[in-house]
Order: sequence, then structure tokens, then C-alpha cells
Amino acid sequence: MQSTSMTVLAFLLLASAGLAGPVSDKTSDCLNCHTVVSPGIVADWERSLHAKVTPDDALKKPELERRVSADRIPSELTAVVVGCAECHTMSAERHSDTFEHSDYAVHTIVTPANCATCHPTETTQYEQNIMSHAYGNLNNNPLYRDLVNSVNGTQTYVDLKTSLEPPDKETDAESCFFCHGTDIQVKDRVTRETDFGEMEFPVLAGWPNQGVGRLNPDGTKGACTACHTRHEFSIEMARKPYTCAECHKGPDVPAYKVYMVSKMGNIYSSMSDHWSFDNVPWVVGRDFTAPTCAACHASLLVTDDGEVVAERTHRMNDRISWRILGLIYAHPHTKSPDMSLIKNRAGLPLPTELSGEFATEYLIDEKEQAKRRESMQKVCLACHSTQWVDGHYAHFDNTIGTTNEMTLTATQILATAWEKGAAQGLPQSAPIFDEAIEKMWVEHWLFFANSIRYASAMAGADYGVFANGRWYLSKNIQEMVDWLEFKLEGTQKKKK
Amino acid sequence: MQSTSMTVLAFLLLASAGLAGPVSDKTSDCLNCHTVVSPGIVADWERSLHAKVTPDDALKKPELERRVSADRIPSELTAVVVGCAECHTMSAERHSDTFEHSDYAVHTIVTPANCATCHPTETTQYEQNIMSHAYGNLNNNPLYRDLVNSVNGTQTYVDLKTSLEPPDKETDAESCFFCHGTDIQVKDRVTRETDFGEMEFPVLAGWPNQGVGRLNPDGTKGACTACHTRHEFSIEMARKPYTCAECHKGPDVPAYKVYMVSKMGNIYSSMSDHWSFDNVPWVVGRDFTAPTCAACHASLLVTDDGEVVAERTHRMNDRISWRILGLIYAHPHTKSPDMSLIKNRAGLPLPTELSGEFATEYLIDEKEQAKRRESMQKVCLACHSTQWVDGHYAHFDNTIGTTNEMTLTATQILATAWEKGAAQGLPQSAPIFDEAIEKMWVEHWLFFANSIRYASAMAGADYGVFANGRWYLSKNIQEMVDWLEFKLEGTQKKKK
Amino acid sequence: MQSTSMTVLAFLLLASAGLAGPVSDKTSDCLNCHTVVSPGIVADWERSLHAKVTPDDALKKPELERRVSADRIPSELTAVVVGCAECHTMSAERHSDTFEHSDYAVHTIVTPANCATCHPTETTQYEQNIMSHAYGNLNNNPLYRDLVNSVNGTQTYVDLKTSLEPPDKETDAESCFFCHGTDIQVKDRVTRETDFGEMEFPVLAGWPNQGVGRLNPDGTKGACTACHTRHEFSIEMARKPYTCAECHKGPDVPAYKVYMVSKMGNIYSSMSDHWSFDNVPWVVGRDFTAPTCAACHASLLVTDDGEVVAERTHRMNDRISWRILGLIYAHPHTKSPDMSLIKNRAGLPLPTELSGEFATEYLIDEKEQAKRRESMQKVCLACHSTQWVDGHYAHFDNTIGTTNEMTLTATQILATAWEKGAAQGLPQSAPIFDEAIEKMWVEHWLFFANSIRYASAMAGADYGVFANGRWYLSKNIQEMVDWLEFKLEGTQKKKK
Repeated sequence: MQSTSMTVLAFLLLASAGLAGPVSDKTSDCLNCHTVVSPGIVADWERSLHAKVTPDDALKKPELERRVSADRIPSELTAVVVGCAECHTMSAERHSDTFEHSDYAVHTIVTPANCATCHPTETTQYEQNIMSHAYGNLNNNPLYRDLVNSVNGTQTYVDLKTSLEPPDKETDAESCFFCHGTDIQVKDRVTRETDFGEMEFPVLAGWPNQGVGRLNPDGTKGACTACHTRHEFSIEMARKPYTCAECHKGPDVPAYKVYMVSKMGNIYSSMSDHWSFDNVPWVVGRDFTAPTCAACHASLLVTDDGEVVAERTHRMNDRISWRILGLIYAHPHTKSPDMSLIKNRAGLPLPTELSGEFATEYLIDEKEQAKRRESMQKVCLACHSTQWVDGHYAHFDNTIGTTNEMTLTATQILATAWEKGAAQGLPQSAPIFDEAIEKMWVEHWLFFANSIRYASAMAGADYGVFANGRWYLSKNIQEMVDWLEFKLEGTQKKKK
Repeated sequence: MQSTSMTVLAFLLLASAGLAGPVSDKTSDCLNCHTVVSPGIVADWERSLHAKVTPDDALKKPELERRVSADRIPSELTAVVVGCAECHTMSAERHSDTFEHSDYAVHTIVTPANCATCHPTETTQYEQNIMSHAYGNLNNNPLYRDLVNSVNGTQTYVDLKTSLEPPDKETDAESCFFCHGTDIQVKDRVTRETDFGEMEFPVLAGWPNQGVGRLNPDGTKGACTACHTRHEFSIEMARKPYTCAECHKGPDVPAYKVYMVSKMGNIYSSMSDHWSFDNVPWVVGRDFTAPTCAACHASLLVTDDGEVVAERTHRMNDRISWRILGLIYAHPHTKSPDMSLIKNRAGLPLPTELSGEFATEYLIDEKEQAKRRESMQKVCLACHSTQWVDGHYAHFDNTIGTTNEMTLTATQILATAWEKGAAQGLPQSAPIFDEAIEKMWVEHWLFFANSIRYASAMAGADYGVFANGRWYLSKNIQEMVDWLEFKLEGTQKKKK
Repeated sequence: MQSTSMTVLAFLLLASAGLAGPVSDKTSDCLNCHTVVSPGIVADWERSLHAKVTPDDALKKPELERRVSADRIPSELTAVVVGCAECHTMSAERHSDTFEHSDYAVHTIVTPANCATCHPTETTQYEQNIMSHAYGNLNNNPLYRDLVNSVNGTQTYVDLKTSLEPPDKETDAESCFFCHGTDIQVKDRVTRETDFGEMEFPVLAGWPNQGVGRLNPDGTKGACTACHTRHEFSIEMARKPYTCAECHKGPDVPAYKVYMVSKMGNIYSSMSDHWSFDNVPWVVGRDFTAPTCAACHASLLVTDDGEVVAERTHRMNDRISWRILGLIYAHPHTKSPDMSLIKNRAGLPLPTELSGEFATEYLIDEKEQAKRRESMQKVCLACHSTQWVDGHYAHFDNTIGTTNEMTLTATQILATAWEKGAAQGLPQSAPIFDEAIEKMWVEHWLFFANSIRYASAMAGADYGVFANGRWYLSKNIQEMVDWLEFKLEGTQKKKK
């Protein structure tokens, strides 16, 4: 199947498309069919740096400009560009999704372990990123799993009562675990008639998915493609806010919406046509004039003189001192990205008590908070004065406090409802997310308090007031109290 | 009024703006005044292909590149570009809005029948498009008309009771019928002083409007300008998602919002600066790297080799197997775009029973569903593997089922409310959309279940969970049950 | 510290960046350090016209192209570009935030009075703009201040009752007053170690802020930088809708969201890549093919022939006849931008009665309304026929009436609640924004009726129906009536 002439043909085809990179024989074989079968994928890849630059050339770049972090790359990979076969046949023996495909052992899913061949530093950092544990942190926490069930489950109604069936896997896969990542399993093999004859393929449970904490068939966690979109792997795209928005736009984590009403988002929306999104390192003021998500949280930033403003990181909370979308209260970040071991004093798998006190032994200390804050402030200070930055952070700290206070108030109302039997919750060892007042309480912190904190953190005030913030936080307390009153009246009446 | 020199002048003016098309004498007359009176319209038109290409030249293009579908075009039109007069004086005798204007019989509204002169295939397809019946399907269905009234009508309040007055035409015109289309009628003639002396004009009821199912003064239905925005008629614009978003962004049909949090929308937002939006046919992978609304639902798509991936269609559900925003349940598409004849077994003008069963005789069968699905999957497969596409559709099918189940639950709660007299509905022969619990029920399917299905269909998961999807679907059941409990307690008390 | 060679150096550095403007010695001194300390700010400024054009050259432009409105500019400023020192050391003696900084008297905050040196007409217009009074109009109106407190205050819960503490300044500063503007005060001085040794700086309360009605340390009101973003001051940015969206996107004033689903917003989103945003004057049809916020409300617009379509204005309601986001009803605009003196017949600081009647003595009369409407219609008519514009305004006028009617209905329900003691309000001399039904009432006009009016004014129908408009307006009445019923039943029971 492989032949020099075919390789040459593929090479010429690619060269004619403005590509100069030498393609391996294996990849050439892939391209011969897939240019026809999946032209969109191939066209995408042809635009990528993977198709244009060999690892050898990538390694020769000056350190700050380098996009690969490996010191050494296996020699069989260095002289050809990174094509289909380089990734999809790599370490095939470790992949349970590997299958025999036109004489090659191919796996559908490329994992962080594969990417680590050239990008080991990023992979290691990402392993310390909460996102890489997004599957387990959600699915294996019994309390959070209850929340998933209450959101995704099917409710039925008989005799004025509802009951809740847990959701099926497909529903989970296209809701919470779409972003958190699914558990990919080979559940079957299937034979299909194709343009090239009969072929056998694995059937994957949990597929398609590119969630950030995906459990992969080689035992690794995560999907680099969540942000580095296949098959162009454009850094431009990873640096634009739309990529983050795929998972960070809803009312539970409205980072994108807040950004877009901030002055920074306004500058981005209005002026980014004039920016350069491809340069590594990314030069503050020259390449861009306002930060995107990536600039503040991930990218290697330098000044025009080459001074490093921020080191590249793929542990996204390296520059973040508070976890503002924490369940149930804002709190210092957890020490470990794996939160499965956390238990508060009350025995609940939560980083705070229900009263808001921090489960300190699992959380970073003030010194670490200060360090992370300083890293972020270095980014702010590239375009803002110390006065500005100090004032901004004073507002933000205040907001952590006031939103946690307002969450405590809502929690106290809920606790009364439980105590008086108006709802069934912790005291009754019942699920705490399935009744109306419990859902009002969830919105209190998951939507409203979170939104206010995001609006504060990124100075996107508009979102924190009427959009989904203080207005609703304030209204919700009154609605919870009224609900409780209406319910207790009914309860009393029934007792008479 | 017409003179060769004036025509030459107009031609020279246009030529100096980079236009080469020969302009008819009639259009030249229009331009003489309207360049001054409505410069924005003229400037817009000057940018259009209509102003640059004669039908003769348009017909000479290779078939796949052709933007006109007529085999023959009336000879008086072929040698001049498509200017003001070509459209606005065409078939004047059939237009009740025609008026005498500077010695010409001019009509304000250009209709699909006019466009069909050069674009007959598109017009014929569009007649089979549900959109072309959007006026009647809404206005002439007594149940849906009740919904319109309950949304747009004016409520008054006396003695703890509210009552509902039906809305006026102006309110209807700028709400539901803005998108669905109005019924344009000549209601009067008016004489106005203009820059060119006193002139008489028709006064049109229902104007301005460019709704997709507009009833036109020549008896036709629809407005091509709903998507092909006057007067540039840019295919770039029709292919961009913002055009669809004018009507498909709200919570009732959140296609745009779902698309924008999908990976496809992310690629569009991040990378479309690098795409070509003007090419016909539209080349997958080369002209664009992720589909827009048009790519999946309407455009003629080819591969770089010229192989057709999808035929152009203006019957928008040609590639859609399920009607996911159906009232009240998702169901197979209707056979006819005119839904006025549908009656379910219960005698209601609905494509399903209130229990969710399909009114099968009015709906396409499984074979037709399979055919439409296959057409769409051909588009998917240009960039995705069969495995991917199969997995995606398995999720989607599951979602059709679970959302319909959850809608049944809400309907059962409402039915109890009706039975027990807590609300007045079908059993009381009362309107079913005007009371609080009925409105909760409407949100259940019109907002939440729909949103989840859109999120599933286009893999924009974020919108289907907390944004306006499963979270609210789940919460709504609890709120409906509580409302019913509170109401029944009141009812019982009054009975005592 | 100043030296010719350093100035020359700075000049050469800037010249090498494509800048030709001569920099003052003072600004050169600033740049020497700040290029290192705040590279983002300097890079931004280098892109600005301020850095490229001297006032002398700016004054020489033909009148329509001129961006400065001063007849004469102080001679010491005319021959150098507008750099750091020109603005930040101007009128230092009038600024309480002035501090000694490397031998210069520098103030952090540049105010409208400073900008007026070159832009006096705009500053004078802006003083008549409601926005410039946004701080006082909100903070000094006892009723509105109550609303702020109810939104931003902290609620606590004891014994089934809630109580409300007024918000702290930090919370106010990052919510309502982020857009309305804060009251900037020098509260302290602080000494900090910097890269250039120990330095003293003022500590400012209310900082950072760039709200439109900011109270500045020199006694002026407003922040030009709210829209003319520092330090590039790009007219492109001021003309793009994202700038207005920073404050006009939320449900209380959804101008941006409505615009974006209008045909105009669609054209903007789809086609503005082909527009020119930098030209002064701005040419309809040539520079842009659909208006942005600025085009309709502020910019100097001309036709291709140089005929003026609309004069530039910084009094934003010059072309607006109705105040559609008025509290509580839509009403004609107020005569004065300072609304602190308004009292209706009932003695409340409102431009209408609670029944909707206008407090006419404080409002512009019909003649002035007609004049403003005509100014706007001239803009419309550049791209629309008279028929179109008349039809559009007929719809809009109708909507003013119907939304006010629906607000009256909601107000009557609230009044019943107050009368019957189900809530505590005006009759009880209690706050009117803190209880659940009061908050429902606020949403009625602040969110829903407003949204409908915006959707009508800008023909963005989709937002006015299901997004946040008529659907909720209609539902809210039913929910208010039900709340009242549930509450009254409880009240009766307690009385038994």
C-alpha cells in the first residue's frame, strides 16, 4: 500500500497548497483515502502548523518562540511533519480503541499522552489543572452527582407527586459531561461497508466527546482538542474568547458574558481585527491591546523588549487566588485538582461548611493565594497603574465577602425549610437539589453569586447587576421566604 | 424624462464606482432622483451583483457556479443589469400596491413571483418551505392564535381579577408577525410634498415588514429579502449566522445561541475572517472550515474536487428529520408546509395528541425521515467520521425521547389543574395559554425542551444545561406542582 | 531630568514606530519611564491620533473633517502632539488628585474640562446629556436610591423574616455606579517602593471608574473615556456597538441586544468588515451600509456628495422624542438633564404619576418631541422610504401606549397589595422595592416594558416577544395576581 511515488504525489499535492513540510509514508497513506473520504479534516490539517513544520525545525526556534516543550523528540518523528499517522498510530498498544485499519494499528482518540511527545510541559501542567479532573470531580462526588441527577433525570407525575428517575448515559454525555468529559469505552466492534470495501471499526461509548476531563482509552485524562480545535490546532483560535465560551458562557460560569461587557471585551470586539493572534511569544501592546481569556490565564506574554510579563501555563488557576464558582461559597483554590478526597467537618464532600467556613486543610493558604494574585497583577500592570489594580482588587475582595454573606442568608432559609419539614433535605437524609426551594437556593450561588463575582473579577459590571447578578440575588431571598411562608401555611392547615 | 444622455451619465457614474453593468433607461431614471433621495439604498445596490452582472452573463456561467436557475429569462431583461425598475415595475398589473410614479407604474414590494423570473427553482422550493406559510400557520390556527393573543393582548385588572383584550394589528406586526410576516394591504392613498413636487403614494397596512411568510399585494407568500437583505443581496450575508439569528435567537427557537456555543460556532467566530463567503459553489474545507446555518441547511456544497456534498435547497427541512420546535412535542415534519388542515384525534389543530402521540397521517414517514437524515449526514461526514456522526445522532434521538417524556409530565400536571378547577382550560372550553400555570407549561416545551433539542442537534451543549435547558425543565416541574398545591389549598379553603 | 537628547531619543523611538508627531519635553520625560512601567498604555497611545497629529494640524482640516471643535488652542499645546503630560498635568491646580511625581504636578484623572481645551463643543453638549448627571440622578433621588439599596444591600434572615442593610461603597462602585459614575475622592496618600525609587501617590476612593457621570476631583462631571477608550481614543471603537454595550446590554436597557437582532445589527455583524470606521465625516452608504448606535445617536453623517444628514451631537437624546426606559412609564424627555428637582403631583421624585400621567412641566413639549423625531427620521430616510419610516414610527407610537397600559395594570395590582397589607409600600411609608411583589412590579417596567419599547424603536422584534418582552409582560401579570392571592389567603388565615 505504501509506495514512494504515492508519497511523492501526496507531497506534491500538499506543496501545491503552499505546504512545504515532508510527509511520512504512513501519513501519505492516510491522506490518499481521507482526502476523498473526509476532505474537511484534511483541509483543516493542511492549514495547521503541524502540516508545515517538522519537530526538528520546531526545536530550532529561540526558546521564547518555541511551541514545543520537549528537549528531545523521538528521531522517527523529527524529520516529517506531524500528520495523521504520527498521532493516530502513536502508542497504539496502550489504546483500547486501537483497531486494524488498512494495515495500520490506528486509534480514533488522540490523548494528552500522545501530545506529550512534543508538548510535555503543557501536559504536565494540565494534569495539575482542575479541568483534567472534571469528570471525577463531578461524577464521583455523591453530592454533585445528586445535582447532576436532579438536572438531567426524568421526572414523572402521579397523584400530585413527582418522582425522579436518574438520567441515562446519553443525556449525561450531552449535558454536564459534554464539557466535563465522558468516560470513553470500547463497547463493541462493527463491520461497515465503505468506499474502500468492508472494514471493521470499534464502537465507542461516550463518543463523540472532547470534554476537558475526558477519560481516555489509554487511561489518561483530558482532551487537548477541547481548546486546541482539531485539525488546524490554531493558536489564534485557542487565544480567542469563543473557545473558552463553549463551556464558560452559561449562567453557572458566565466568564464570556462578563468579559464581553467589560472594557477589555469591548476593546477585543472592536479592535482585534488589527491584532496578531499567531505570534509566540505574545507581545503586550503590539500584538494585542486588551487581554483575551488566554492572555490573563494561560499565555506566555512579553513586552516589546522581550521581558516576560507572564509565563505560559496550562494550570489555569496559576494566576487565580479565589475559586469564585465554588460550591457553595467562594473559597481559596483547592490544593489538589483532584477533589474526590475533600470532606468538610460536617462530613460533606465540600470545600466549605454549609455555613461558609473554609475546609482549610484542603485549600491553598494565604501565602499561595498572594503568590497567585501577584502573578495575575503583573499582567494587569502591563496596562494599568498600581492604583488602578489595587482599587480593582479591593472591590473584588469585598465582593467575595458580600456574596458569601448573601449565600449564607439563602442557606439559612433553606435550613428552616428542612427543619420545619417544608422540604426534605440533609436532616431527612434526602437529596438536596430536587425540590423547588432547593433549586432556588442552587440558583442563588450557582447563578447569581457566581455572576456577581465574575463581573467583579473582570470588571464587567453590567452582568453583575441586572443581567444575572445582584438583582436576582436580592429577589431570590424574598421569593424563598415567600415560598416558605406559602408552604408552611399549607403544612399547618394539613395538620389541623 | 428618459434620455440617452441621462442614461449615459448614470452609466458613467456607476462605472466610476467600479461597476461595468449596463443600466436600463428606466432604472437610469430611478437613479437620477433616488441617488439624492435615498443614497443609502442606491449605494447598497451598487455593491450588489445585481448592479454588476447582466442576466445574460449570469446564464453563461458553468452550471455549478450559476446563481440564476432560469433556463430562459425574458429578452428585455437579459442585456441590462438588474436595477430598480427591473424589479419594482415588473408585473405591475398584478400588484395592488402599484402606483403611478414619475410616469412609471411602480410597486413598493418586490415579491417571490418577481424574483422567480431569474430564480424559479429557489422560489418553487421556498413555496414548499414551512416559512412561506408562516403567516397562515400561526394566524389561522385557532389554538396558536390564542397563544398570540395571550402574549400580545392587553390585560386589565379589576377586583382581584384580570381580563385580556386581543392585541391591535400594530402590536402583532412588530411581534410575532414581524418574523412570520404580515398581511400587506393597501389601505389608503396619500399625497405628499417631495423634493420633486407633489406626489401620490399608497399607504400600506402591515408595512414595513419582511417576514418570511408575508402575504404580498400580488397574492404571493414570503419575502426573499428576509434573508437576502436589500439592496446588496449579498450571499455573504445570507450565509452568515446573523441573518438567521434575526428570527432564530430567542428562547423559543435558540438556534443561533446554540450554534454559537458549539464547536462549529466557535470555529466560525474565531476563524471566519480567513474564509470566502462569496464563492458559488461553496467549497468545504477551502472556502470555510466549519458550517454556518446556511451550509447545513441550504447551500450548495462541493468538495475541492467539485464533488457535490449537498444540493442547494430553499426548502429548509430537506435535511431535517425531526421538527424539534414543534408544538407541543417534537415530531416528524409535516408532509405539507401548510398546516392549516391538521387535526389530531382529539380534534385539536396539532400535529400530536396532548399525550405526545403523533398525528401520523399528516406527518412524513420513517422512510422520508431517513432520507432527510442521510442528506444532512452527508454534510456532517465531510468533516467527521461515521463513528462520530452515528454517536451524535444516537444522542440526538435519545433527546427527542426524553424531552417529550418531560413534556408529558408537565402536561399531566396541567391536566390535573384543569380537572380540579385550579385553572380553566380544555375541559372548561377556556383558552389554554392565559393563566400562570398554563404559561409555565408553555415555557416547558416552547423554551426549555426546545432548547435542549437544539443543543443536542447542533452539539451546543452549554445552552442545553443551565442556559435555558435541562435546569429549567427540571425546576419547572417542581414549580408547577407547588403552584398547583398552593392553588388547591386556596380552593379548598374557599369551599369550606 | 529633561534633556534635548532624551526628547530626541523618544522622538526617534516613536518615529521608528511610524509616528511623526513632535513630542513635548514633558511627555518625553513621561515616556522614558512609562514605556517600561506600563508598556500597554504607551503602545495604545502610540496608535492614537493624539500621538500623530498636533493641534495645529488638526485645526487646519476642512471644517467637516475636523475632529477638534476649538477655534483656538493655547499656543504651548499646538506644536506638539497630545501626549501624557499635555493631559495629565493640565490645570493641575484645579485637581485635588494632583500629586508631585518626578518633579511634575500630575493628576491621575483626566476630565471633560481637560478635554474641552480642544473639544469644547462636545464637552458643552455632553453637559446637556443626561449621562453627565447619571451619578446625581440616581444617588440623590431618594426613590431611586431606595432601589439601589434594595438591589445592592445585604439581606439577613432571622425567625422567618429578612432585613436589609444598605450596601457599602465598594459594592455600589462595581454595580450601579460602575456605569453611572462614582464620586472620586482623595482619601489618603501612600508611599510605595517603585522601580524608580520611593514615591508618594494619592489613594482615591471610587477608583478605578470611568462611568459616564463620574464626579471628578476637579469638580466636573463625566468621563469621556467611558466611550473614547484610553489611550488609543479610537473613533472606530466609539462608533462600534460594543462600546455602548458596556452599559446598554442588560435587561434594564437592552439596546445592544435589540440592535443585534435587528436587520441593521445583522448588516453590521455580517458586513462591517468592509466598512470604514475612521473617516470624519462619516459617509452613509460608502463608509457604512447600516447604522451603528453612534450613527443614529451621535455621529456627523453626510452623503457621498457632502450633504449633511445629521450634525454631530454629544447630547444623546437630540434625536430621541420619547424616553423609553423611564421610571416607571415611557414619557417625553425631561427638559433638564439634571432630574433632581422633579416632583410629580403626588410629591414623588418621578417624571410621571404612578398612574402614568406625565409631569408635564418638567418634560419637553410636543413641538420639541417633533423636532427631535425629525432629526432622527432624516437619518432613517437616507436608507428608507418615507412610507417605511412613517409605518415604523406608527408602530413605535402604538407601543408607547400599550406598554404604558400594561404597566398601569401591574401598578394597580401592586396598589391592591399595599392597600390590603399583603405588602408594605407607599401607604405604609415603607420602601417600595424590597418585597417580592414589588420586585415583580419593577421587572414589569424596568425589564419587560422597556425591552418591548427598545425592540419597537429599533425594529429588533425578536427581543420584544419571547426574549425578554411581551411573553414575560403577559406572564408577570398572572404571577402578580397569583402571588397576591396566595398572600391574602395567608393573611386571612392569620386573622381568623
